[in-house]
Amino acid sequence: MNNIFSNLNLFAHYLVQEILKPGDWAIDATAGNGKDTLFLAKTVTNSGQVFAFDIQDQALEMTRNLLVANNALTGVQLIKSGHENMESIISGKVKAVMFNLGYLPGGDHEVITKPETTLAGIRQALNLLDQGGIITITIYSAHEGGKEEKEAVEELVENLDSRKWNVLKWSFLNKSTNAPFIVVIYRKEEG
Amino acid sequence: MNNIFSNLNLFAHYLVQEILKPGDWAIDATAGNGKDTLFLAKTVTNSGQVFAFDIQDQALEMTRNLLVANNALTGVQLIKSGHENMESIISGKVKAVMFNLGYLPGGDHEVITKPETTLAGIRQALNLLDQGGIITITIYSAHEGGKEEKEAVEELVENLDSRKWNVLKWSFLNKSTNAPFIVVIYRKEEG
Repeated sequence: MNNIFSNLNLFAHYLVQEILKPGDWAIDATAGNGKDTLFLAKTVTNSGQVFAFDIQDQALEMTRNLLVANNALTGVQLIKSGHENMESIISGKVKAVMFNLGYLPGGDHEVITKPETTLAGIRQALNLLDQGGIITITIYSAHEGGKEEKEAVEELVENLDSRKWNVLKWSFLNKSTNAPFIVVIYRKEEG
Repeated sequence: MNNIFSNLNLFAHYLVQEILKPGDWAIDATAGNGKDTLFLAKTVTNSGQVFAFDIQDQALEMTRNLLVANNALTGVQLIKSGHENMESIISGKVKAVMFNLGYLPGGDHEVITKPETTLAGIRQALNLLDQGGIITITIYSAHEGGKEEKEAVEELVENLDSRKWNVLKWSFLNKSTNAPFIVVIYRKEEG
């Protein structure tokens, strides 16, 4: 059975749904097959905005097709660019940002997210995130280069000031140590 | 602001609410101040059953008072016994079991949960848990003896067969390593 206790993507959606409301802005930092973009688009509805980034034409096409098939293209901007450019493209605060690190499922396994651009993307997402907003980072590290990326992300988020951010991890305890897991960054409300 | 991203008790309730329904049976393995018992009682409603264990009179009294004040005593059994005896007392399957390890907030800090009885309680909870059911274990380990208990619990749950159980951990990445965290055990549906 596929539920939040077995499927990391469903769990990430479950958490984001606690925060994200109709009319909000959200970012899919790694559009990939488009499932997160579709989820975000449905959640913010036509009155909100979703910015979906990917560097691969194949991913943007899959995402567009999925949105069209679900009548959810309105309010979604598909952006052929890496997430390390999000700050130069988006002017305004967002309530949710979703990252899926690794490679495009079903795509070219040589094209993977890389530590430098991933860290830049996360730093920019932190800058764009509104108070009470959430970033989810689903980390797959079993592939070549995945361990280095995982460690770089962990080092970045472990050092976020706990007065301003709650950083949490959702991970399996009875699977191998390189099983995927989720990092959740919540920006506290101030004052 | 107190929400699921800052408060472990609220997060545990959030997860249990995904599973537990009116009419179900549930166990509060460590009644303590009664907050989890009250939550479970409200969730299963009058048509369900809650079994609340504690070895301290003070805890059972606090729990009873909280239930009475919220008109939620119906269907709750307050049991003055350690959770290591739950299997001999409960005959039937339960959908949720909640543990809070450590000491009673506001109570005697010398009275703490101990590895032997905690492990026995968790093993019995695993036996009583229905398919599709959930166990949450909130672990405080900063007190004397807490580290040993934490390690004993982790060793037990890490070895649960991943074909039958999903074992997950929800922990802070930007707090000290002895900050409290939650272990979640989900029993998969069979067949």
